[in-house]
Amino acid sequence: MTANELYAQIRRKQSYLCVGLDTDIRRLPAHLLREPDPVAAFNRQIIEATAEYAVAYKPNIAFYEAQGPRGWESLQRTLEAIPKDCFTIADAKRGDIGNTSDLYARTFFDPQAAGLDFDSVTVAPYMGRDSVEPFLAYENKWVILLALTSNPGSADFQRLETPAGPLYETVMRTAQTWVPAGEDSVDRLMYVVGATRADQLAHIRTIVPDHFLLVPGVGAQGGSLAEVSQYGLNSRGGLLVNASRSILYASDGPDFALRAADEARKLQGEMRGYL
Amino acid sequence: MTANELYAQIRRKQSYLCVGLDTDIRRLPAHLLREPDPVAAFNRQIIEATAEYAVAYKPNIAFYEAQGPRGWESLQRTLEAIPKDCFTIADAKRGDIGNTSDLYARTFFDPQAAGLDFDSVTVAPYMGRDSVEPFLAYENKWVILLALTSNPGSADFQRLETPAGPLYETVMRTAQTWVPAGEDSVDRLMYVVGATRADQLAHIRTIVPDHFLLVPGVGAQGGSLAEVSQYGLNSRGGLLVNASRSILYASDGPDFALRAADEARKLQGEMRGYL
Repeated sequence: MTANELYAQIRRKQSYLCVGLDTDIRRLPAHLLREPDPVAAFNRQIIEATAEYAVAYKPNIAFYEAQGPRGWESLQRTLEAIPKDCFTIADAKRGDIGNTSDLYARTFFDPQAAGLDFDSVTVAPYMGRDSVEPFLAYENKWVILLALTSNPGSADFQRLETPAGPLYETVMRTAQTWVPAGEDSVDRLMYVVGATRADQLAHIRTIVPDHFLLVPGVGAQGGSLAEVSQYGLNSRGGLLVNASRSILYASDGPDFALRAADEARKLQGEMRGYL
Repeated sequence: MTANELYAQIRRKQSYLCVGLDTDIRRLPAHLLREPDPVAAFNRQIIEATAEYAVAYKPNIAFYEAQGPRGWESLQRTLEAIPKDCFTIADAKRGDIGNTSDLYARTFFDPQAAGLDFDSVTVAPYMGRDSVEPFLAYENKWVILLALTSNPGSADFQRLETPAGPLYETVMRTAQTWVPAGEDSVDRLMYVVGATRADQLAHIRTIVPDHFLLVPGVGAQGGSLAEVSQYGLNSRGGLLVNASRSILYASDGPDFALRAADEARKLQGEMRGYL
């Protein structure tokens, strides 16, 4: 999927909502626990209820991995339930030396490997160029690189001054040089940017005016959608704003999917106004 | 396992060898492919053949993850085959916001979650304190933090100058303050340090004289065991030196385990001389 194709979907749905499938088996409605795969059953209903309002889905891999082998089966079933026009993100925050990152890339991008075929993976930048390039070697797939995250620990290293500015800025600039020659980094690379401070987002837009930003901190994490949209939107959309818990756990009863749809519709309605 | 207990094992075996179980199903001896779980069968024989010479085993999680759900079953079976006195490392390079890192910690440390009970996990530092603390919350478990890795990309960010020195030094110093109050960081925290330059290792020992270092770059990756040992060993051992491909793939025939034992014995013999 190119950035323009993603933007076409954003225009069509009048939404830049990403639904975070951080599905915690301990928080599922009780009636689903009788299903053979409760996590997949829950996700399937969440996806059906929200696909009209969301352009992207982002399973956080930790939630599946913590269930062992059956968690990976739930992940496969979840990915199959996502409509083909939606953008899919493996929120895995992987990164290792070249030959190992190559295996992580195969895990999430090559259906022959682990039965998964995501459009993108979140990647941690600490190990540098050869830890990220294997993910960029897959045509039509994306790297979503951690830049400035929304958690308190983002202050520990990401904001440290380096010779060319704070570390997260250096990460953003340097990574653009890693995209294969002849390709536009705007079509291959997004950044994770926490939404906790709007002025920071405005500053980031001066560094990467054209790239898509994945913003995790709206909803239960408390960012303001109005401010994120004001400072983050660009001429090709340029934003994927994630909401997880506020949608997934809007109700813990049998009406959970209906209530999830309500929450997604509310966010989409707000987004329509900002587009 | 405390640092002293690990050192007792090092003295007993006269070895600080870590065997990296980077088991690539595409490189297994042909006769094993008839086994129901070829990866676990291979690992079991490697472990039996090398346990006399190795103090630690380090499965690289990417190799298992790339096989999908059955890869996680191979990982469970591999971990069960490792003798209880050996130190086990999940080389996963995880790291995410607090509640997600908590799930990654459960995955590798809590046998009730994913059926795994490792002694330690490798963790990426980019997201800071709250991404690492959940791993430190497990008693008697270790975080092995990426500091200065051995790959070419380590120059991109890890060596960048920050106000308190190169980023990797800041990471090493800062992380020591994250260990729960009343506990000695030497018993909870190790660092991944690439072995490509001995002078760098000598410098790192001035920053962390007492901590264990996990050195990945000996063997097929080409570091010198003599130099690493000269500059890295301390009064409690303080080193785990990893070898993977040189041991695992010493032969691709039915004698693979015998040849793996030869390679491990050779390294252990050299280590005995340095201790």
